[in-house]
Amino acid sequence: MAFTASFIAKTLGLTLKGEDREITGINTLENAGPGDISFLANRKYAQFLSATRAGAVIVSEEYADKVSCALVSANPYFDFARAVGFFAKPQGNFSGISELAAVDTTAELGENVTIYPFVFVGPRAKIGANCKLFPGCYVGEDCVLGEETVLYPNAVLYAETVLGKGCIVHAGVVLGADGFGFVRTPLGIQKIPQIGSVSIGENVEIGANTTIDRAVLGMTSLGDSTKVDNLVQIGHNVVIGKESFIVSQVGISGSTKVGDRVTMAGQAGIAGHLTIGNDVTVGPQSGVAKDIPAGLTCGGSPCVDGKTFLRTLAVMPKLPDMHKRLGFLEDEIKELKALLGKKGDV
Amino acid sequence: MAFTASFIAKTLGLTLKGEDREITGINTLENAGPGDISFLANRKYAQFLSATRAGAVIVSEEYADKVSCALVSANPYFDFARAVGFFAKPQGNFSGISELAAVDTTAELGENVTIYPFVFVGPRAKIGANCKLFPGCYVGEDCVLGEETVLYPNAVLYAETVLGKGCIVHAGVVLGADGFGFVRTPLGIQKIPQIGSVSIGENVEIGANTTIDRAVLGMTSLGDSTKVDNLVQIGHNVVIGKESFIVSQVGISGSTKVGDRVTMAGQAGIAGHLTIGNDVTVGPQSGVAKDIPAGLTCGGSPCVDGKTFLRTLAVMPKLPDMHKRLGFLEDEIKELKALLGKKGDV
Amino acid sequence: MAFTASFIAKTLGLTLKGEDREITGINTLENAGPGDISFLANRKYAQFLSATRAGAVIVSEEYADKVSCALVSANPYFDFARAVGFFAKPQGNFSGISELAAVDTTAELGENVTIYPFVFVGPRAKIGANCKLFPGCYVGEDCVLGEETVLYPNAVLYAETVLGKGCIVHAGVVLGADGFGFVRTPLGIQKIPQIGSVSIGENVEIGANTTIDRAVLGMTSLGDSTKVDNLVQIGHNVVIGKESFIVSQVGISGSTKVGDRVTMAGQAGIAGHLTIGNDVTVGPQSGVAKDIPAGLTCGGSPCVDGKTFLRTLAVMPKLPDMHKRLGFLEDEIKELKALLGKKGDV
Repeated sequence: MAFTASFIAKTLGLTLKGEDREITGINTLENAGPGDISFLANRKYAQFLSATRAGAVIVSEEYADKVSCALVSANPYFDFARAVGFFAKPQGNFSGISELAAVDTTAELGENVTIYPFVFVGPRAKIGANCKLFPGCYVGEDCVLGEETVLYPNAVLYAETVLGKGCIVHAGVVLGADGFGFVRTPLGIQKIPQIGSVSIGENVEIGANTTIDRAVLGMTSLGDSTKVDNLVQIGHNVVIGKESFIVSQVGISGSTKVGDRVTMAGQAGIAGHLTIGNDVTVGPQSGVAKDIPAGLTCGGSPCVDGKTFLRTLAVMPKLPDMHKRLGFLEDEIKELKALLGKKGDV
Repeated sequence: MAFTASFIAKTLGLTLKGEDREITGINTLENAGPGDISFLANRKYAQFLSATRAGAVIVSEEYADKVSCALVSANPYFDFARAVGFFAKPQGNFSGISELAAVDTTAELGENVTIYPFVFVGPRAKIGANCKLFPGCYVGEDCVLGEETVLYPNAVLYAETVLGKGCIVHAGVVLGADGFGFVRTPLGIQKIPQIGSVSIGENVEIGANTTIDRAVLGMTSLGDSTKVDNLVQIGHNVVIGKESFIVSQVGISGSTKVGDRVTMAGQAGIAGHLTIGNDVTVGPQSGVAKDIPAGLTCGGSPCVDGKTFLRTLAVMPKLPDMHKRLGFLEDEIKELKALLGKKGDV
Repeated sequence: MAFTASFIAKTLGLTLKGEDREITGINTLENAGPGDISFLANRKYAQFLSATRAGAVIVSEEYADKVSCALVSANPYFDFARAVGFFAKPQGNFSGISELAAVDTTAELGENVTIYPFVFVGPRAKIGANCKLFPGCYVGEDCVLGEETVLYPNAVLYAETVLGKGCIVHAGVVLGADGFGFVRTPLGIQKIPQIGSVSIGENVEIGANTTIDRAVLGMTSLGDSTKVDNLVQIGHNVVIGKESFIVSQVGISGSTKVGDRVTMAGQAGIAGHLTIGNDVTVGPQSGVAKDIPAGLTCGGSPCVDGKTFLRTLAVMPKLPDMHKRLGFLEDEIKELKALLGKKGDV
């Protein structure tokens, strides 16, 4: 793929300053060659501008005259993200319905659906137009996939899972397995059948090997444009709003409600039956055992507001010293009391 | 599916008080409609009783006259769990042995086994009567599956894995992969071949994408009725007793022995070569580095008894303040000592 | 399989002392029978030497006369690891290219490649000699597999993934899924296309259901002989050196650089854009938010040097008591000040 810098600038709505170039790739300032476009999004890397071999650079106005071919942007990181799209190619190039797939005769396939070999599509499933189902995917009975949705290899959708338009489900994801519901009884452990389902909005992306359990009753649901990273666990009846980011290895226990535009950093754990408000940010490895009001940034285990958390973090390595100082003080008090003619505890 | 409330009551051994109804589903008090049965298991939700539209409600004796159709139960939550079963339907409806599966000619299949397309069954594997193997499952050579066991899509059983009767193995589970065994040597890293296997009791359920490694020698084993959630890691030669609950994202390192009726909450990590007694409860995100005696409830990292843990949790957010107070005290002591005509440290 | 003890000794370069035996298996001192070889690698188990029924034992010189058939070793654990190899048999016994696989006509297969049923190999993929691809594997277009590499069932390699010689990729591993790259914009969330790839060295082993994301630009890479356990998350553009051990459920965020011979214990979490030096050891459940210099052993969240960490761990359970003692001291100071005729705070 080759584009002129001016074509890229025009398509992205940016102004080109300097000489036009032919661009065949995209890379960082450090690694770019003469055929690459690059970008400066962080002032800290401005030092690389003079030495870069990049053919063109997406920069803010103030750096436009530092390079021979600048695409001037109000938001270079955002425009970099869009520029990468020029050089992206979709995974796979199979098209049509493979004869090595097993598609139930009652399933409904939209126009231009791609079904690779070894895909199983169950009874009454509805696959929207332009969906792609990679090898090894399982789509249970009565599932519904919106248009343009992609299931990468070995993704599994248990029965009745619903996915909106434009979703990306990465390899090994499991949607709709039974939630962890059991009752200990004098007669042994009783399984609570999990008869709800999973419902995912539009433009949701779900990372590799993530698991989202079906509801015991009703729905486990994720709102539009929410993005979930790899190896995340989302329990039964969890409800997540829209445009939230759930980072790798987070675990959210059953029936917790998570708002819109929430960010949960890696390995955080959220107890069940909580309410996490809109625009909350939860730090990495946090342990959340209480509701969090909208807008709060918090961290730690137990999770507390961000300021308290950072102050606590700073104190942690001082604990052994604090313990020692406390002992010294007790000795000194004892001595002072002795000096003052007092004995033992007050 | 439709049942009369009186039929459900009779089948569960409960007493019906009020008018009989036709019931076609089950839901929470808040969400139930006139065709649904519901339940009250937690006093906190008693407020919903008056407003519920549910056709029938499973309640304890004291609430029986608050609804027009009550199924009176000594344990409403347990009977709810059983009532859900009336409305549960099994995943999938394929039966027989698919021609698109690859079953070794030396494998033994019991009566009424279901083998979906794209399943691989290796030499000498024994699949008990009424087992169901969903698409994409791999059953290695010499595996043994007890009757009524279900493998959901893309579950993988390496060679010689043994599963008892009535097990449920969710999608993407991996049983019997090599344990993490290596020796650093002057000549580089030497892999310790893992020649043991995995042995699972009866009525065990294993959540999606969980991994249980084969033993280096001997067996990694789980006892009857133990339930494992999603994305759990169980290392080589771990032995878990019966009726234990291992919640999502827990990791148990090699050779640790876990007793009966143990509960490990989400994201707990257990070091290797430990002994965790019967009836132990380990809190979420705990880090267990020592043996735990039977019956203890514990939490934290490092894991301590429950009372100490809760008291420690309560102090954590006060640490920055404690640090400040300690400094003040030191200043005051210094001042008092000066007042008393003493100088410097005692 | 049966070998004489003398044959095993000779093959491993060890000296046999005592009577020769026929050996058909290998087990621990406690569990070994007369046909088994065993080993003593840890002084703590020396007590089992007198009672063991093992036919032969790998021991250091000092214990050679305690057993009737000793294989004398300078490093018994290492030689045990090698001895296990005598009794290991590879998974599976299929050979050739299954007619139930889907191999693109432009893929290049080396000599003696094994491709099981339900494997998908995309355009232009190169599979080295003696590779084995188990059922359900997906090898995207332009992937390259070095000789002798094994992909266990349902492993997924997105397009352009490169694996060196002699790698072992366990079941359910996902290599090359999109990294978690998004930009929040006033117009909504913009996905940053992930156009880099994954590159793995020689003799790398990757545990079941682990995920390693493709780079946004350039490469996510692992060096030769690095070993990764189950359920590990490695983010986009992470670079790991050679001979490192990454234990189960560790998460490494994007663009972090990890050196050679590093060990990261279970459930540790590493923030993005960090540099972890050679020969570093990171303790279990650690939270690493800063660079770590070469050679350091560290632990905790936040991660600090090992000594500080252990001292902090020891203080943790004393915190509630420290909090109480601090209050007492404040009271005593107040009283002392009163005694000295002072009022209120200084």
